[in-house]
Amino acid sequence: MTLEDARVLDAADPLAPFRDRFLLPDGLVYMDGNSLGPLTKAAAARARAVVETEWGEGLIRSWNSADWIDLPRRVGDRIATLIGAEPGTVLAADSTSINIFKLLAIAAGMRPDRGTILLEAGDFPTDRYIAEGFASLNPQKFGLLGHKIASGDITAPTPDVGVVLVTEVNYRTGARHDMAAVTQAAHDAGALVIWDLCHSAGAFPVDVAGTGADFAVGCGYKYLNGGPGAPAFAYVAPRHLDGLRQPLSGWMGHARPFAFADDYEPAAGIDALRVGTPPILSLSTLDAALDAFDGVDLAALRAKADALFDLFVANLPSGIELLTPTDPRKRGTQVSLCHPQAYAVMQALIARGIIGDFREPDILRFGLTPLTLRFEDVWRATTTLADVLATGAWDRPEFRARAKVV
Amino acid sequence: MTLEDARVLDAADPLAPFRDRFLLPDGLVYMDGNSLGPLTKAAAARARAVVETEWGEGLIRSWNSADWIDLPRRVGDRIATLIGAEPGTVLAADSTSINIFKLLAIAAGMRPDRGTILLEAGDFPTDRYIAEGFASLNPQKFGLLGHKIASGDITAPTPDVGVVLVTEVNYRTGARHDMAAVTQAAHDAGALVIWDLCHSAGAFPVDVAGTGADFAVGCGYKYLNGGPGAPAFAYVAPRHLDGLRQPLSGWMGHARPFAFADDYEPAAGIDALRVGTPPILSLSTLDAALDAFDGVDLAALRAKADALFDLFVANLPSGIELLTPTDPRKRGTQVSLCHPQAYAVMQALIARGIIGDFREPDILRFGLTPLTLRFEDVWRATTTLADVLATGAWDRPEFRARAKVV
Repeated sequence: MTLEDARVLDAADPLAPFRDRFLLPDGLVYMDGNSLGPLTKAAAARARAVVETEWGEGLIRSWNSADWIDLPRRVGDRIATLIGAEPGTVLAADSTSINIFKLLAIAAGMRPDRGTILLEAGDFPTDRYIAEGFASLNPQKFGLLGHKIASGDITAPTPDVGVVLVTEVNYRTGARHDMAAVTQAAHDAGALVIWDLCHSAGAFPVDVAGTGADFAVGCGYKYLNGGPGAPAFAYVAPRHLDGLRQPLSGWMGHARPFAFADDYEPAAGIDALRVGTPPILSLSTLDAALDAFDGVDLAALRAKADALFDLFVANLPSGIELLTPTDPRKRGTQVSLCHPQAYAVMQALIARGIIGDFREPDILRFGLTPLTLRFEDVWRATTTLADVLATGAWDRPEFRARAKVV
Repeated sequence: MTLEDARVLDAADPLAPFRDRFLLPDGLVYMDGNSLGPLTKAAAARARAVVETEWGEGLIRSWNSADWIDLPRRVGDRIATLIGAEPGTVLAADSTSINIFKLLAIAAGMRPDRGTILLEAGDFPTDRYIAEGFASLNPQKFGLLGHKIASGDITAPTPDVGVVLVTEVNYRTGARHDMAAVTQAAHDAGALVIWDLCHSAGAFPVDVAGTGADFAVGCGYKYLNGGPGAPAFAYVAPRHLDGLRQPLSGWMGHARPFAFADDYEPAAGIDALRVGTPPILSLSTLDAALDAFDGVDLAALRAKADALFDLFVANLPSGIELLTPTDPRKRGTQVSLCHPQAYAVMQALIARGIIGDFREPDILRFGLTPLTLRFEDVWRATTTLADVLATGAWDRPEFRARAKVV
């Protein structure tokens, strides 16, 4: 595949016009939208407006006049359209970690006689850490049925498993589970499933309703382009929404927060997942960032991501191993490569304007985000990678020195 | 007290120049800084820079180049100077509600043989709601020593009380506890104390170290002016920092988050309170908002707040009751008034450009924030209030109709 071939693909790309919705630095090939999505024009404008007009001029009145109060639900409903969820089932709030805690408590409470939370080895650590923290609150030292966490085959839960907590797309390899099949297996075994969609939502079509998922969480700052540390989201299937109650029972999740009643009464529906006052600047910016998906056919998004993947793999240089499954049904939309000097190789690429990232111990990741990435960009990335490897350009002390955040 | 008298006080006010740090709408008397602090010039500039430069141009690289990763600790250290805390003991993160949950779990874990969490009747509901939620995770239905919450005299904990959760300044009345005395009484009774400083931090000098407080939480969007839903903060006394562990054990609180290890190992010190990825836009804006306190003598801030209070009370019209104690040692820096038509009266004031707020069932609140409020402003507020009451101008259907957020 030559640069000319890539340019032919770009010329025929129906998603090409959407790139103009983004503010991308000149000359950079940004392939880290799977870690921090880029800024859109709409998000930049909204961030200014929420600070300078809504806060600066409206002040406290904007809770009503700008309807800040319903923003978590409104943004949730927009995210719902990207993950195949019903209106009123998604809330934008807090972080992925905190949302996992809430959903674990709810799901575990629905299976009180099954004390095991099943996770998969190699999933993103926060899911496991939060499960450990949750389990620590129900101490088994008393000899009770508390909660414990187990790593194992998430496609075959044993009878002690009440909750399966599983990530659809693995953050390291990009390998993808079959949501419908895993959910069905869990249900057959009497367990509930919480799906972590951090590397799915906004990357390709997700169908939480169609696959029968019980619960889901996901990230606002990766494929949704909401900005660094943007609020996350949580999904609860309609059949579990009734009487929802969770232990992070802050005042914003009360049925009538402004009654300031002594007793906690959870809000109806998904609003029961609310905790404290939401970070309006971050949440408004995420809201505006979602405009980038207006009019985007998610099937076409996925098709272009697959074509970008094919181009990447066709031009993959020798001396580096592809970790991501090539079968499109078995992967998300990232390319993960393995190299013993992965960190230094990535730093050398970044120095040449190709931005991906590194994951311990030896993985290079490249996110394929079709709204901003051109075929020409992927061609440049693979060509630069080939040169860095062939010339050993990565072998410099400044590329080996680890930064605080990798 | 006449308008001329008020202007004489403004002319002699050493804090008057600080008002220029804020972007205040013309013609408005903003007395709701105790609910949502106003925008500063520094915060507006920083919000733009973090969105357009750090995120827009720096992209993922800003985690290192703009040191986003240490922002929660850096902002925490700045808040520490406002509450009399030692460096390294305060973290800016999450919401007040979520921070209360973390500290409750830590404090309760330090008093495993005392199952009662003592609160005060009439405190802000989220503290109680979160305590209920925490207690719900340690179910007493098994007949165990779980946790229960009790309302009572927080100055005299009974032997079953492990943790006292108390707000320094009551959100409704503005009445203030003696932090040193309450803390000492709790310690004498064998209990630990978590202080809620939502209506204290940034309002007047607080001395968590000097009063012997064990833990504290507080709000970023009230007196700290961090913007709507700005991150909150949490304080842990140095003697409790060693080996800190809490159940919202997200990846950012790991000792080495970027090792992506399977097992959770809490970070040393206050960083163990971190959970997920922080909302960088909101947190950076809070950071810049704290610039407004640079060079401000907190004792002078308090002295002016007291003088504003005296002016307010001296001009208080008849037919409305003062709820806030007049003894400055027994109150924070708000004025709370009681009127049977408090909601409508406040709406009438807002329509005339005097912004305070309403709390159920019959309370009008006015925040006295000395960096932005002039004596002339308080004179205008009391004069307008007198006119609204004398003329019955509040008695209109549009002032009685409750908005979603009050």
